[in-house]
Amino acid sequence: MNKRYSLDEYIALINQKLDSCLPACSYGEPVVLEAMKYSLMNGGKRIRPILTLEFCRMCGGDIDDALAFACAIEMIHTYSLIHDDLPCMDNDTMRRGKPSCHVAYGESYALLAGDALLTYAFEYATKSALALTDPQCAVEAIKILSSCAGVSGMIGGQVVDLKSEGKSVSLDTLQTMDSLKTGALIKAAALMGTVIGKGSPEQKEAAVRYAENLGQAFQIVDDILDVTADEAVLGKPVGSDKESGKSTYVSLLGLEKSQRIADELTQQAIQSLDAFQDNGFLIELTKSLASRKN
Amino acid sequence: MNKRYSLDEYIALINQKLDSCLPACSYGEPVVLEAMKYSLMNGGKRIRPILTLEFCRMCGGDIDDALAFACAIEMIHTYSLIHDDLPCMDNDTMRRGKPSCHVAYGESYALLAGDALLTYAFEYATKSALALTDPQCAVEAIKILSSCAGVSGMIGGQVVDLKSEGKSVSLDTLQTMDSLKTGALIKAAALMGTVIGKGSPEQKEAAVRYAENLGQAFQIVDDILDVTADEAVLGKPVGSDKESGKSTYVSLLGLEKSQRIADELTQQAIQSLDAFQDNGFLIELTKSLASRKN
Repeated sequence: MNKRYSLDEYIALINQKLDSCLPACSYGEPVVLEAMKYSLMNGGKRIRPILTLEFCRMCGGDIDDALAFACAIEMIHTYSLIHDDLPCMDNDTMRRGKPSCHVAYGESYALLAGDALLTYAFEYATKSALALTDPQCAVEAIKILSSCAGVSGMIGGQVVDLKSEGKSVSLDTLQTMDSLKTGALIKAAALMGTVIGKGSPEQKEAAVRYAENLGQAFQIVDDILDVTADEAVLGKPVGSDKESGKSTYVSLLGLEKSQRIADELTQQAIQSLDAFQDNGFLIELTKSLASRKN
Repeated sequence: MNKRYSLDEYIALINQKLDSCLPACSYGEPVVLEAMKYSLMNGGKRIRPILTLEFCRMCGGDIDDALAFACAIEMIHTYSLIHDDLPCMDNDTMRRGKPSCHVAYGESYALLAGDALLTYAFEYATKSALALTDPQCAVEAIKILSSCAGVSGMIGGQVVDLKSEGKSVSLDTLQTMDSLKTGALIKAAALMGTVIGKGSPEQKEAAVRYAENLGQAFQIVDDILDVTADEAVLGKPVGSDKESGKSTYVSLLGLEKSQRIADELTQQAIQSLDAFQDNGFLIELTKSLASRKN
């Protein structure tokens, strides 16, 4: 059995690698690298890279082989947050308790920092692919990463999101949006891990099922936390997100039913982990994500 | 000797492939795909993809193997133009005689169309890599593409450009900026062709030398055309670009010296083609780029 890692060990490993993997500045203009690092090292939960490493490990693979892909997916997640926060998108001035990238560095540099993180994700993954003994697996992983991040995946979800702005939408549309916007990268994370770890076809299918259920549960819990946090802090009524007018699981289904569905999805995610022997860590992580308070 | 292609044949081949390679829309929101296609099929000169195909062919390779990489580099070039035109960057409302992407589709969709083209470049190249008999070569080509497009290449050049805005800069800074902003992708185009065509180490070096000289000559000719077009149309004085206050080769060196240097660089580019036997097409193309009128 492969060495197990604790949550803290995983986070430390990922942060150390992310902190050291950006290129050095060779032409005297470090500002965009600073902006990249500012957003990348901003204390994220690192769920996606942890999934990549743990699925690789559960398949019997060496997590060192998966580390570059784990970092790459976190770079892509970070770029998407930088671009999402821009004034022409959500116009969010804060991110994880700090000024967003464009507030700290200006819009032009934030735009370029996002572009650069997306590009570097592929550069870094490809460099690592050349070092692996089986480049075919690595190319397969890069294909998964690019297709899940692109217009048929995460970016597609952002388009559905933009189109729905200020409207109430159906539960179907909400599910499509979330499965693309949040779910696609979570699926890529899990699936890349099984590809690098040379999992069986059954394990790859199980990883996809796990990710689909986890991704949706994650989004519903987010919606619930938005409402309960508002209630706790501001005494706002439970219901639709009044500021944006956007439909959420809570506005469409109510708090109680949303919670029940989130619990069911979490159970289904955990069940799909039956395809892996040493699945204790991921069962615990999945439960803790379902019951998280922020 | 491999089958030769004329300029028109190359452009037709590339346009046909670019027009058909974008993914189909699966979730009912085609707007971002339309925006991608709007910018991609906007009558560009296709210099970068032609270089990839022709260097592959001159090395004895099959241009079908290089076609996906040729398309990928044009997608990256196109994304960079879309993002460069955005209000937070150059705020250009026209591009090649048509409204820029953000004018036609709005800022949010233009941002996402750029992100999606960049991502799809890697997806498309990677898919093609999996179909090649030698994935190692393909991974090498993707590494070149990502590193030349990123913060140590094209994006780095955009940062130097932003930093220089409204200032006069030294010839050194101008050369650094151009070698990154324009030169890096031209280098990637030529080098990817030799990698997919399995050129010799000498041919790879020659391709890099060719691209460096061509890239700089191209930029100087651009600067000269800006001034001579202004003179012809508006009677504006020759010299610095008064509107932006930016230094150009012409403002730093004068028209005559700029033209002499462009001619020298073109000659050097042509000389480096000695490393290839069947180099007639590229010699002609290089000459025509140096003497172009737009």
